[in-house]
Amino acid sequence: MSKTRGKAIECKAAVCWEPRQPLSIETVKVEPPRGGEVRVRIAFTGICHSDAHILNGCIEAKLPVILGHEASGVVESVGEGVTNFEEGDHVITMFLPECNQCRCCTSGKTGTCEVFMDKNYANGLLMDGTSRFSIRGETVYHFFDTSTFSQYTVLPAISLVKVNPVAPLEKICLLSCGIPTGYGTAVNTAPVKQGSVCAVWGLGCIGLAAVMGCKAAGAARVIGIDINADKFELSKKFGVTESLNPLDYDIPINEVLKEKTNGGLDFAFECVGTTKTMEQAFMSLHKGWGKLLVVGLAPDGDTIKVPPFELLYGKTITGALYGDHRRAKQVPELVNKYMRGEILIDEFITHTMPLDRINEAFDLQRDGKSYGKIYSRFPRDPAVKGHFYKLQRLYTKARKHKYREYKQSLLKQIETLHEENPKQYWQLIDELQGKEKDDKSALVAPFDWLNHFKNLTEPKDEFKERLQFLEEKLNILEKRKCFNELDSRISETEISTALSSLKINKAAG
Amino acid sequence: MSKTRGKAIECKAAVCWEPRQPLSIETVKVEPPRGGEVRVRIAFTGICHSDAHILNGCIEAKLPVILGHEASGVVESVGEGVTNFEEGDHVITMFLPECNQCRCCTSGKTGTCEVFMDKNYANGLLMDGTSRFSIRGETVYHFFDTSTFSQYTVLPAISLVKVNPVAPLEKICLLSCGIPTGYGTAVNTAPVKQGSVCAVWGLGCIGLAAVMGCKAAGAARVIGIDINADKFELSKKFGVTESLNPLDYDIPINEVLKEKTNGGLDFAFECVGTTKTMEQAFMSLHKGWGKLLVVGLAPDGDTIKVPPFELLYGKTITGALYGDHRRAKQVPELVNKYMRGEILIDEFITHTMPLDRINEAFDLQRDGKSYGKIYSRFPRDPAVKGHFYKLQRLYTKARKHKYREYKQSLLKQIETLHEENPKQYWQLIDELQGKEKDDKSALVAPFDWLNHFKNLTEPKDEFKERLQFLEEKLNILEKRKCFNELDSRISETEISTALSSLKINKAAG
Repeated sequence: MSKTRGKAIECKAAVCWEPRQPLSIETVKVEPPRGGEVRVRIAFTGICHSDAHILNGCIEAKLPVILGHEASGVVESVGEGVTNFEEGDHVITMFLPECNQCRCCTSGKTGTCEVFMDKNYANGLLMDGTSRFSIRGETVYHFFDTSTFSQYTVLPAISLVKVNPVAPLEKICLLSCGIPTGYGTAVNTAPVKQGSVCAVWGLGCIGLAAVMGCKAAGAARVIGIDINADKFELSKKFGVTESLNPLDYDIPINEVLKEKTNGGLDFAFECVGTTKTMEQAFMSLHKGWGKLLVVGLAPDGDTIKVPPFELLYGKTITGALYGDHRRAKQVPELVNKYMRGEILIDEFITHTMPLDRINEAFDLQRDGKSYGKIYSRFPRDPAVKGHFYKLQRLYTKARKHKYREYKQSLLKQIETLHEENPKQYWQLIDELQGKEKDDKSALVAPFDWLNHFKNLTEPKDEFKERLQFLEEKLNILEKRKCFNELDSRISETEISTALSSLKINKAAG
Repeated sequence: MSKTRGKAIECKAAVCWEPRQPLSIETVKVEPPRGGEVRVRIAFTGICHSDAHILNGCIEAKLPVILGHEASGVVESVGEGVTNFEEGDHVITMFLPECNQCRCCTSGKTGTCEVFMDKNYANGLLMDGTSRFSIRGETVYHFFDTSTFSQYTVLPAISLVKVNPVAPLEKICLLSCGIPTGYGTAVNTAPVKQGSVCAVWGLGCIGLAAVMGCKAAGAARVIGIDINADKFELSKKFGVTESLNPLDYDIPINEVLKEKTNGGLDFAFECVGTTKTMEQAFMSLHKGWGKLLVVGLAPDGDTIKVPPFELLYGKTITGALYGDHRRAKQVPELVNKYMRGEILIDEFITHTMPLDRINEAFDLQRDGKSYGKIYSRFPRDPAVKGHFYKLQRLYTKARKHKYREYKQSLLKQIETLHEENPKQYWQLIDELQGKEKDDKSALVAPFDWLNHFKNLTEPKDEFKERLQFLEEKLNILEKRKCFNELDSRISETEISTALSSLKINKAAG
C-alpha cells in the first residue's frame, strides 16, 4: 500500500491562471480519490491543440485550471468501489470515458460514451461537483476530468485504461489522444479497404496517425495535403504516397484531386479542423461511395455547408471521437501493436522536455516546429527514468509469467533505491548491464532498449559505448529474425535467468 | 417484327410548351431508335414531382419538351447494336441509367452511374445530340432520356429494364421511380436493422415507400412525420407505427423525437426535399450511430448546414438515387416481390386517368389530394386494358411453364382482336369469365383480378355482379390459404386447363 494513500499529496503542476499567459509551475495540493475515482502519478504527458485552445482563449474554461489530457502514469491509490484498478497499475488517461453502462457503450455500435456527452465539463469539476485540486486553499479546476499537467491527478476510473506494464510509459502516453484518433478513424470508422484511394488534410499528429491507419488498412494511395511543405518528406515514413500543397494551385484543391484520382477520393480525412477544409474534402470525394471522415475539431458555432444533391450521389459524411476505439478493449491492443512494431509512436515525438519547460513546448507547437507531439517528462531525470521503466518492464514480464513472489519485493527495492540512494541505483543498473553483456537471455527487448537510448535528449557519456554494443547485438539478432513475436518468444527459462541476474544485483544493492 | 419498325410513328403526347401552362395533347412524330436506343410503346406512366418542377418553372428545361420518367411499356423496336431487348419485351423506364461499364457501375459499391452524372440532360437531347421527337417539323425535346408522357418514346437501352411479363404493367410502372427510391434507401442504403428506431419526414410516395422499406427490414418503430395529418391513418398500412405533426408542437421536432425515442433516431429519412427538414432530421439522430438518409430533392443551390461536432459524435449523413438499386438485377426482383405480395404498389395509386386528363393529375398532385401516385393510362379504355393484361399474364405464366407454342399465337390473336374487333374481344372475355365460374383452376390470380376491379375508377355496370362473385370466391380461397405462394402454386395441369379454356375461346373468336 502506498505511503500516501488516503492523504493529500503536494506536488508540482502547471497551472493556467488566465488565457494568453504562460502556465505557472506551482505546488498544488491533490486530495485523495473519492468513490469511483483513482489517483495517478503522471509519468509522461503530451501536449495537444485542445489544451492550447484554452490557453489561447478560444474555448472558455473555469479558471484556474490544470490542463492536459494525454498522459501515462501509475496508479497511486484508488477510491471506494474501484475494483478494476490497483496501486501500481500502469494506466493511460482517457478524455473520452467508457462507462460500460450507457446506451452507447452497450450498443457495440460506437466508441462514444453518454457520460462524455452529458457531463458538463465546462464547470471544471468531477462527477460529484467538487475539485481535488487546490493551491493555498483556493480551488483549482479540472480539465476534461484528466488534468495531466500535474505530477499527481485524480480521475474517474472510467477515464483510465490499464495497459501492459511492459510497455514504455514515455511512449504510450501518446496513445491517450491523437494517435488513436487518427489511426482509428481510418481503421475503425472509415474503414479504409485494401486498394482505397485516400487523402488526409493536415499532417499534424492526428493527420499522420490517419495516414498510418490508411497504410495499415492497405490503402493504395494516401495523398497528404498541407500548406506547410516541410512536412511532406517526413510524412512518407507514416505512409503518405504523394503530397499536395493547396498553395501551389490556382484552382480549388478538390478539382486537382478529382483530376489526379480519376474521379475523386474513396476516403477523405479532415484533420485540420476548419469547415472550409471539410467542405473541400467533401467536394473531393468520388461520387457513388466517397466518404468524408471529420476528425479535426472546428471552432464552436461553425457549420459545414453541404449541397444535398451531392449526397444523393451516394457520398457520405461521418466522424468519430478517439477513432471509435473501445477504450478498455482496444487501447491495450494498441499498446501491444506498438510493442510488436505494428504502429509507430516514437516517430511522433519531436521534443521531450521536463514539466518546468512546458511553456516552451506550447511555443514550439504554436510556431509549427512540432509536426507531431511534444511531451513533458515527470518527474525525474530522463535517463534515470528510462532505466527505471526498463527494469519495471523486465519485472512485469516476470509477473506475467507468474513470478509474482519476485516482482513485489524487487520493484519496491528498486523504487526505494532510486529515491533514497541514486548512486547505488546506478551501480545496480550498471551491474545489470554488465550481466547483459554476457547473458543474451537477459536482453529481453534490445530493440526497445536501443530506441530508448536513441530517444534520450541528453544521453550520458557513459552510455554511449553501451549503445554501440547494443546496436551491434541488435544487428545480429535482427539477422536472426528474433524480434517478430517478442512477447510470445520470451520463455520461462529466460525470465528465470533474468531474475537470477537481478537477484545478484539485489544482493549487491 | 412490328409493322412500324424502322418507320416514324405518329402518336399522342402531352407536350410542355412553356412553364406554368397546361400540357398540350398533341400529335407527335417519333423517329425510329438509333444505335443503342429502343422505341417503347408506353403502357402506363406515373406523374412525379420532378416532372412538376419543370412545369412550375423551378427547374429549367429545353422547350418544348415531353416530360415523364416513370413508366411501363412494351418494346416496339430496337436500334442497332441493342442485343438485350427485343420486340414485345415488357420494360420499365429508368431515369437513372445503368451502363455497366463506368467506374460506378462496375464498382459494386453504388447504384449510381457515371453516364447520369456526366450527361448534360439540360439540352434535352439523346446521347448523339439529337432528338427523336418533332411536331410539324419542329424539334421537341427529351426529358431525362425518358419522356414517358407519350404513347411512344425512344430511350437509350441503358435507361430500360426488362421485367417479368406476367406482372401487370398498370402497377409496376410505379417501380420506375418513387417506390424503389424510398424502399431501397431503407433496405439497401441505410440499411435499417431488425429493431431499429426510424422516422420518415414527408408521407408522400417516396416517404411511404421508405416506411415500407423500414418495416420490411424489421424496424421496431417507424415514426411518420408530416404537416398534413390526413396522411397518418393511411400511412399505417405501409408500416408507420406512430405519427407526428410538427405543427402540434412549440418546440423543435428534434427535441420531441429525442424525448420520445430515448436519445434519438437510429435512422432518419428525409423525403420532403427541404434543407430545413434535412437539418431537423440530422439533429434528431442518436449520437454514436444515428444516420440521416437524404432522399428528397432540395432546390438547386440550397445547402444543409451541419455542426461538425455532431459528426464527431459518430452521426452519419448520406443519400442515394433510386434507393441504390442495381437496375438490371434488382428491379426485376422488385417486380417479383410485388407479385408475391411482399411489397405494396396498388396502395400507392390514388387516381388513374387517361392521357388527355394529365393536367388534372398535376392539379391533384399540387393540391395534395394525391398522397401517393397518379398515373395516366395509355392508350386504351381502362377496363379493356385491365382484361387485356389479365390475359397477357395468364399466357405468360404459361410461357413460364414452357408452353411457348401457345403463347405467341394466343397473345397475337388477342392483341389483334382487341385492336380490330373490340366487340368480339369482349365476347372472348365474357366467355373466359363464364369458364372461370365453372373452372376454379383458371382463376390464376383472383386477388389481382379483384384488386384490378376495385381500382377501376369507373367500373362498368356489367362487371359489378362478377365483382361480387369473385369476392365470394376469393373469400373461400383465402380461407383455404391458397394464395401464399401464388406463383409456385400454379401447376402444369392448371395451366393446361386454362389454356384449353382459351383455345375454346380462340375457336369462338
